[in-house]
Amino acid sequence: MNPDRYFSPDPSTRGIARELYQTVATLPIVSPHGHVDPRLFADPNATFGTPADLFIIPDHYVTRMLYSQGIPLESLLTGDHRKIWKLFCEKFYLFRGTPSGIWLTHELSQVFGVDEKPSASNADRLFDSVSDKLSSPEFSLRQLFERFNIEVLCTTDAATDTLEHHQAIKDSGWSGNIRPTFRPDGVVNLDAPNWKANIEKLEQVTNQPITNYKSFIQALEQRRIFFKSMGATATDHAALTPATAELTPSETETIFQRALKGESKPNDAAQFTAHMLMEMARMSIDDGLVMQLHPGSLRNHNDIIFQKFGLDKGADIPIQTEYTRNLLPLLNKYGNNTNLSLILFTLDETTYSRELATLAGHYPVLKLGPPWWFHDSLNGMARYFDQVMETAGLYNTAGFNDDTRAFCSIPARHDVWRRASANWLAGLVVRHIIDENDANEMIQDMAVNLAKRAYKL
Amino acid sequence: MNPDRYFSPDPSTRGIARELYQTVATLPIVSPHGHVDPRLFADPNATFGTPADLFIIPDHYVTRMLYSQGIPLESLLTGDHRKIWKLFCEKFYLFRGTPSGIWLTHELSQVFGVDEKPSASNADRLFDSVSDKLSSPEFSLRQLFERFNIEVLCTTDAATDTLEHHQAIKDSGWSGNIRPTFRPDGVVNLDAPNWKANIEKLEQVTNQPITNYKSFIQALEQRRIFFKSMGATATDHAALTPATAELTPSETETIFQRALKGESKPNDAAQFTAHMLMEMARMSIDDGLVMQLHPGSLRNHNDIIFQKFGLDKGADIPIQTEYTRNLLPLLNKYGNNTNLSLILFTLDETTYSRELATLAGHYPVLKLGPPWWFHDSLNGMARYFDQVMETAGLYNTAGFNDDTRAFCSIPARHDVWRRASANWLAGLVVRHIIDENDANEMIQDMAVNLAKRAYKL
Amino acid sequence: MNPDRYFSPDPSTRGIARELYQTVATLPIVSPHGHVDPRLFADPNATFGTPADLFIIPDHYVTRMLYSQGIPLESLLTGDHRKIWKLFCEKFYLFRGTPSGIWLTHELSQVFGVDEKPSASNADRLFDSVSDKLSSPEFSLRQLFERFNIEVLCTTDAATDTLEHHQAIKDSGWSGNIRPTFRPDGVVNLDAPNWKANIEKLEQVTNQPITNYKSFIQALEQRRIFFKSMGATATDHAALTPATAELTPSETETIFQRALKGESKPNDAAQFTAHMLMEMARMSIDDGLVMQLHPGSLRNHNDIIFQKFGLDKGADIPIQTEYTRNLLPLLNKYGNNTNLSLILFTLDETTYSRELATLAGHYPVLKLGPPWWFHDSLNGMARYFDQVMETAGLYNTAGFNDDTRAFCSIPARHDVWRRASANWLAGLVVRHIIDENDANEMIQDMAVNLAKRAYKL
Repeated sequence: MNPDRYFSPDPSTRGIARELYQTVATLPIVSPHGHVDPRLFADPNATFGTPADLFIIPDHYVTRMLYSQGIPLESLLTGDHRKIWKLFCEKFYLFRGTPSGIWLTHELSQVFGVDEKPSASNADRLFDSVSDKLSSPEFSLRQLFERFNIEVLCTTDAATDTLEHHQAIKDSGWSGNIRPTFRPDGVVNLDAPNWKANIEKLEQVTNQPITNYKSFIQALEQRRIFFKSMGATATDHAALTPATAELTPSETETIFQRALKGESKPNDAAQFTAHMLMEMARMSIDDGLVMQLHPGSLRNHNDIIFQKFGLDKGADIPIQTEYTRNLLPLLNKYGNNTNLSLILFTLDETTYSRELATLAGHYPVLKLGPPWWFHDSLNGMARYFDQVMETAGLYNTAGFNDDTRAFCSIPARHDVWRRASANWLAGLVVRHIIDENDANEMIQDMAVNLAKRAYKL
Repeated sequence: MNPDRYFSPDPSTRGIARELYQTVATLPIVSPHGHVDPRLFADPNATFGTPADLFIIPDHYVTRMLYSQGIPLESLLTGDHRKIWKLFCEKFYLFRGTPSGIWLTHELSQVFGVDEKPSASNADRLFDSVSDKLSSPEFSLRQLFERFNIEVLCTTDAATDTLEHHQAIKDSGWSGNIRPTFRPDGVVNLDAPNWKANIEKLEQVTNQPITNYKSFIQALEQRRIFFKSMGATATDHAALTPATAELTPSETETIFQRALKGESKPNDAAQFTAHMLMEMARMSIDDGLVMQLHPGSLRNHNDIIFQKFGLDKGADIPIQTEYTRNLLPLLNKYGNNTNLSLILFTLDETTYSRELATLAGHYPVLKLGPPWWFHDSLNGMARYFDQVMETAGLYNTAGFNDDTRAFCSIPARHDVWRRASANWLAGLVVRHIIDENDANEMIQDMAVNLAKRAYKL
Repeated sequence: MNPDRYFSPDPSTRGIARELYQTVATLPIVSPHGHVDPRLFADPNATFGTPADLFIIPDHYVTRMLYSQGIPLESLLTGDHRKIWKLFCEKFYLFRGTPSGIWLTHELSQVFGVDEKPSASNADRLFDSVSDKLSSPEFSLRQLFERFNIEVLCTTDAATDTLEHHQAIKDSGWSGNIRPTFRPDGVVNLDAPNWKANIEKLEQVTNQPITNYKSFIQALEQRRIFFKSMGATATDHAALTPATAELTPSETETIFQRALKGESKPNDAAQFTAHMLMEMARMSIDDGLVMQLHPGSLRNHNDIIFQKFGLDKGADIPIQTEYTRNLLPLLNKYGNNTNLSLILFTLDETTYSRELATLAGHYPVLKLGPPWWFHDSLNGMARYFDQVMETAGLYNTAGFNDDTRAFCSIPARHDVWRRASANWLAGLVVRHIIDENDANEMIQDMAVNLAKRAYKL
């Protein structure tokens, strides 16, 4: 791991980037949005299992790449873990130049002390060595959380979640700051898998029948209060498009009743989601929860894989996404209300300079989230800095999210962001666009402060 | 203000960029498209007012950024100017890394001799110092025009404008070359605010009743002749999309009559604008006025702000724009007629390499305007050079426009363009794609010649 | 021709790029997709004709640029060749910074020993000097093929082509490896010019009547077998969009019958093409021919030019292209079948990071073709590396295609690719994203191996 990795090769830029980076390299990690399972921290001694359990099986970034090269998912998700690990090591060259390659290399080196490139010839040895580490007490989740210097970690939790693991963490007296995030997609998107079952769960956890739109809204409001009481500062919403549009009360009721009866019409789900985004903005104004919107992923594109292996197997594919007209109703109603804070994400980079930066550079309620998912990469960050910052301004962005379910990759991801940020700022300094004083403040903001402020942490 | 600002940090590139830049640094400014108010030059002693009048209140680039961070527009547009200025200075850090930051820094330094960064602590002192300058005779508009070394400045004027200020400038005997541009949006776009009132103005200035499409067209033709007699060499057209399509005479008449009666149907305005773009191309072939098209801005996105504060308050948001099919009717009819010259602009950078460069690299009538509005920035220019030039070729582009209503920012904006151009060319030289002889000719073309030729100046 | 041309000016990057490049600079050329006329190689002594015949008349990259600057196509395509050449030399400055400029300079220097920039003053001399060379035996097509060190060259041939020139090449005993590619657009796209005549040709070459959809499919299958027997390893398909969707047998028959009768309905061609792409994938699974898809070009945009001068005159303009939803039917049916290999191309670079890289990074059947047409350029390649590689991974790409009908530009185009690849890899090395061992393997893959594997050569 070269200490100057990811910096520009230009000596003047590199020198400044290095200095800027060093001022934030060891700052605590603020992780305001991600998908780590809170259950892992509820048990004080929980560990990861095998190297395959940690690095391969749950990581769709890794399995999709191997699958794309003709390796059956069966051989990656099931069977002997040493065999899975060997397959991964043999094919490690596929990750050359990819963010997964960078994160995996960082994790192996910085977490497990492995500085060799995985390959067919060292696969067995690495498996043993990593397995040894994983079974030792210093590699419990909680110890790693502390070693990673995580100041706060936000999880993502269904609206119907009891948050029992969050409660268990609190009850245990452990000091780790782990907060839930309210994600109501499963009850808000009428076409969510198991929507009806989710509504029934919502009835159970709120202890009230949901027979009409009004009781549905009351249940959601009640859950938000509960999440807030458990430490949540934000909500999160996925939608195929960022369409927003208020329905009339009677339209809302009609659509909701059709859904309860399992008789939804083709357009109902899209209309209802668009309406519910308005409702969620209204509730955020009331309860102060920061609202996140993650649109534009066509989930489960590969039906065969979905039927066989379920969600999150690498077949979620982005689509073109439109924000200017889609957000118009929401922004016209709530865009000037500074009690609202709405953080936008995108998988469609064409919207950076055209729509997102121009919207965020005007509306007080808007902030732009960092490069998301496929774009959480060195080039993705460079494009984001290039296309967003001039128009939106740094202070209309929300710092970094790692957005990961791979807990051990968190330090790697924040390290890439901090280095990329330092390198971007150094580029501005050497071209005399900002001075070093500015850069020194901005790197602190990018590493930690913007995320804390945007998420009210 | 570092003399090497905005150049690549690579020493070989920087050296060549510097040399190229020096050959154009002091060339006169050719400003073929912009929004400076000609009234400012009609009065020989006109000045700017306070620092807030100059730097903040009329500049929606500045106010939008402050507004986006929760500062009420009321406190920026109204009230005590010293207070407005202080607010601006306190929040000056918001402009870090933005083109506004670059322009403001340049103006303060080069026009007002202020080399400090504005801040809460120096706000009062800067207000006094800039105010002093502004009230001195050397800071009259005309003196600055000469000091800025502006060879020609084109304004943008409604079709119904009497051009009295242009006339007054001429009559005054002052040598400043200020030319009008014919912008008929207010009478051509049926959904323009006050369309009917604009038609009545058109009747007055042409001294003929407009009762049907034929008299409307005659009025426009008459106005174009008048503008030309006043020095205009170009027209300018805004439209939500670049759709072009000829209606039949009876369709045209029907739509026009409905508009006169205030009974337009939903689609009328879009169809009529598409038709009128064809008509404007035809007229340009007749009278030789260069035609400019600026599509793709959804104006007044924030209705509350529009109702309270009116046009141009930072809430015009770009939309996706399509040129290949939209321009097909116009280009099929007039695209090979070298009497036409049509300069295209875009706010949708995805069209640079896909549509605009390929169209301009084929059709003799087309030229591409420089990066527009949000993209008039260092990164915006770099993306434009990167994505346009290989396919369109430099000689199918139209040099630079500052497109500004902020008169004092004109030298800053041209300086950024000249530096960015020099840096781009230096990058081609060091990679041996062009040689220094080529680069030396190209930098002259980019700084001045292309704009002069494209606009027939 | 500087030996370090096109490399980054940064000394550390340049040094590594140079070393990487040198390991592949003289490797044989693998050209798996292009448009060179096989007839040229059927005659052992065939030559090119005049310099205008070689460099100008057949090259729509060259003529479009000259036409865009107001030079009539008549004066470029007809009349005295020395005059055409002079016009080209006078206007050679138009190609500054363009890929055509790079290729032409390379060809003149490396193939014809001309190291001067063409201009009005040396035009006559260059015409004579190049003419002399062209009439000498070493400049026969076959000798140049050998001198260019071409290992394999694939042509593109109509489904109805007899492949007589390929047969003649074989029969001649010459060792040049020239293979056909099966391109059935003329019979598959119902709106192709002369579709009915093409069907009749298909009847002739298959010696069977085509009276219904079944016999049409049988004819295509038979032709594919014939092409394969003649050395083809791939098919190629152009379509306005990449829409794929299976029709029912009765829909298919109805649409096909309407087409036979010349009574196609407006939507028939689009639906039939979408259906036939599914059929072609099915056939590829059966016969192993690699499938290429080149969508998104709106052909013959300039109708006047098309009427006067026909196809391929520089007026094919890209349109926005959507892959995620359009390919869903095909990928859901065949996307997991590793007997299929589908290589995707695009003229819409916005799809690189959003759709193509994410699809190719998941589906085992997909590979991404190199930057196509207008994007086959230094910047186009840099954008492709930047936007594709992190998400798709290098090993889901298909190496390089020159895709040219300009035979003498083949070495230039591969040289640009190899240099751009070396430069990209060097950039990864200096930023410590990959190491030099990785880079040394990757440059071999990019220069030759990926193309060979993707095209089964």
